[in-house]
Amino acid sequence: MKILLADSFPDTHAATLTKSGHQITSEPSLDADTMVGAIEDHDILIVRSTKVTAATLDAARNLKLVIRAGAGTNTIDKTHAAEKGISVCNVPGANSIAVAELVMGLIISIDRNIHENVSDLRSDKWNKKKYSKSRGLYGQKIGILGLGSIGLAVAERARAFGIESYSVAKSGRSREVENRIQASGIRQLDSIDDVLGLCDIISIHMPSTPQTQKMINAGFLSKMKDGAMLINSSRGDLVDETALLEAMNTRGIRAGLDVYDNEPSTGEGAFHSEIAKHPNTCGTHHIGASTEQAQIAVADGVLRVIESFESDQLIFCVNS
Amino acid sequence: MKILLADSFPDTHAATLTKSGHQITSEPSLDADTMVGAIEDHDILIVRSTKVTAATLDAARNLKLVIRAGAGTNTIDKTHAAEKGISVCNVPGANSIAVAELVMGLIISIDRNIHENVSDLRSDKWNKKKYSKSRGLYGQKIGILGLGSIGLAVAERARAFGIESYSVAKSGRSREVENRIQASGIRQLDSIDDVLGLCDIISIHMPSTPQTQKMINAGFLSKMKDGAMLINSSRGDLVDETALLEAMNTRGIRAGLDVYDNEPSTGEGAFHSEIAKHPNTCGTHHIGASTEQAQIAVADGVLRVIESFESDQLIFCVNS
Repeated sequence: MKILLADSFPDTHAATLTKSGHQITSEPSLDADTMVGAIEDHDILIVRSTKVTAATLDAARNLKLVIRAGAGTNTIDKTHAAEKGISVCNVPGANSIAVAELVMGLIISIDRNIHENVSDLRSDKWNKKKYSKSRGLYGQKIGILGLGSIGLAVAERARAFGIESYSVAKSGRSREVENRIQASGIRQLDSIDDVLGLCDIISIHMPSTPQTQKMINAGFLSKMKDGAMLINSSRGDLVDETALLEAMNTRGIRAGLDVYDNEPSTGEGAFHSEIAKHPNTCGTHHIGASTEQAQIAVADGVLRVIESFESDQLIFCVNS
Repeated sequence: MKILLADSFPDTHAATLTKSGHQITSEPSLDADTMVGAIEDHDILIVRSTKVTAATLDAARNLKLVIRAGAGTNTIDKTHAAEKGISVCNVPGANSIAVAELVMGLIISIDRNIHENVSDLRSDKWNKKKYSKSRGLYGQKIGILGLGSIGLAVAERARAFGIESYSVAKSGRSREVENRIQASGIRQLDSIDDVLGLCDIISIHMPSTPQTQKMINAGFLSKMKDGAMLINSSRGDLVDETALLEAMNTRGIRAGLDVYDNEPSTGEGAFHSEIAKHPNTCGTHHIGASTEQAQIAVADGVLRVIESFESDQLIFCVNS
């Protein structure tokens, strides 16, 4: 089949596809607009975060399958794809370790102010006095909202730090998930409000849906403790950034953010964001899933999706 | 007894001492020189990192006990104290959690380049492309040199990340330490060279002694893998900084440093250090032990030392 790689993809895995008889076109620098002209008669499109618009789907002459090499599919027009009989699949869970590592890194960086330590030393300043005022993580409480594979991976790491994990009770979880919840010592409370009022750190691991968009608003933030940490490594549009700025300025809320409501879809460029550059923010450039380890795990998953498609037993389809 | 607090000490714990009938003088801004005039007829001196010199010991009229509120006693003239019959005690282990948290924070910050992510966002730059090139920690190998309470606490946290821990086999370890080594999955190799050649991350947890000073020299560094990480949260004089600079510049060695050979003994000021400001360094201001959690654990330990002194069963004495 003709496969278009519209984002970077490990050479090893591209070679495996070629060896299996597929014809690969690799165009990692495509964007939402240029993809319209590049999709042509490809059967399969593999993308990471590049947007797949209705225009691309309409321009495609043979497209049967769009594979998101990652978890979040909010960048793909899934409904339009379904209308045209094009399946959209993702690779859930493969990114979870990489995201959980970044979440722990943001939490420790904020607690110890590592990023500002570095910046002061690079400006020839010694300020042990200022940076000696951390609380330390042992014994703190983290509220994990969303117990998918990422939330569980965060809890498993937090446990080793003596951080207590809390989440919201929910019926219908699989036995495997309930076992991991037990093993990582997550205590389940009745409501989000209970979690927000109790915890020192709140970490969000939910997809962007009409129900979750802007859920971190003024009301949500007002229930968090003064000076608490908010970590968002999921999607930028879950946060009402104006409300978060207000909570930072008036109540010392500190944020570890990997995603932003108006983040660029490009790999580099200018980005003017009050929230990203706020002194209470320890911000990264939407790199949660971007480790070599995760990319290999995701690419393994993409190959499994293609195999499943060829054997008519499609896995991880999100629009049917 | 008359107790001089020559560094900050939690109010709660100072109050406990007063309540037990002790007479407390709190002078947290003393330095090595002004301490000479302040020691007077105090029976007990409690210090953190402020230097206790022979001059102070000579000026003391009643001093019987110096307590280091922390682990490292290289700032205290222990030999001269012993000659004068003054016991020097420390509080080992109480800092270990705080140091281990910082070590993990430095490792993740370096792997994901969190500090430079922050600095770019604060300069209105978006650079997902640059920061998406991390390896990820899962499956990496850490060599832990020194398996005291800090090294063990690092291994326990690393294990939750799927990082494999290695150290050097040594006879005569207590059963408790051997149990923790087993439980955290540390594999013991025959020599330091074996550890250096195998591991992606090397973390140093040894005291400063004539045997360890400058042990991280050109020969040591040459046995590390290209691009490997060196984490030093112990003492600055363990590292030959000229050799480390060379290894950074020529072989991409990355360093997480909390301590420096010529670091200021003051809380703030200017600090010109090529190694601290090097782009391959993620540096902090000797804050390893400086968390509220650690300070409380240490102060608990100080009270235990005083009780043991009063009941003639002195614990944690390092100069007898």
